Amino acid sequence: MLKREAADGVFHALADANRRAVIERLTRGPATVSELAAQLGVTVAATVQHLQVLQDNELVRSEKVGRVRTCQIDPAGLRNAEAWLQRQRTAWEHRLDRLGAVLDDQTKESGS
Amino acid sequence: MLKREAADGVFHALADANRRAVIERLTRGPATVSELAAQLGVTVAATVQHLQVLQDNELVRSEKVGRVRTCQIDPAGLRNAEAWLQRQRTAWEHRLDRLGAVLDDQTKESGS
Repeated sequence: MLKREAADGVFHALADANRRAVIERLTRGPATVSELAAQLGVTVAATVQHLQVLQDNELVRSEKVGRVRTCQIDPAGLRNAEAWLQRQRTAWEHRLDRLGAVLDDQTKESGS
Repeated sequence: MLKREAADGVFHALADANRRAVIERLTRGPATVSELAAQLGVTVAATVQHLQVLQDNELVRSEKVGRVRTCQIDPAGLRNAEAWLQRQRTAWEHRLDRLGAVLDDQTKESGS
């Protein structure tokens, strides 16, 4: 179960096009902060802020070696958000299936 | 493909515990605005505002008959958000698989 506050954070983190662009880039492999800033076309300072939000919500991990910080995907956040959405869709589809079954039964009864 | 602005909106809509509670409720079946307000423990006016955000992002549909507005799930928004997350996770997992294959090859080569 995705806890209330964790869910607020992870969906808030995903509600920004630049932060989603970072995730899309990192699914293809690790990148340094400078590389991510260059790709986004924003300052390193702005990129660091976005990365902080992503790290706080378990969407990105980073490691500093010497002066270079390298980032990679943290799968926990993506999995949590996806699981919540999947649960809602599944619950809704099951309800439709049950409704369909009830309608089928009624059709059979009225036909017999 | 989830368009940039649509994705901003749908994830923003999901980044609120009350709006997620509305979705969780509606997956079990339609509900009136008053019923949703009672469940959330907030005013009807606040509920209407949340519903507007959910409707704008294709997460909820509503229909007014007489003086009663009834809401139900709109699956489009859930599917779009889930599809974006699924693409990121799949891309990341494929990358891990490829890395694993490279490491296996190197192990075999060094062992032969």
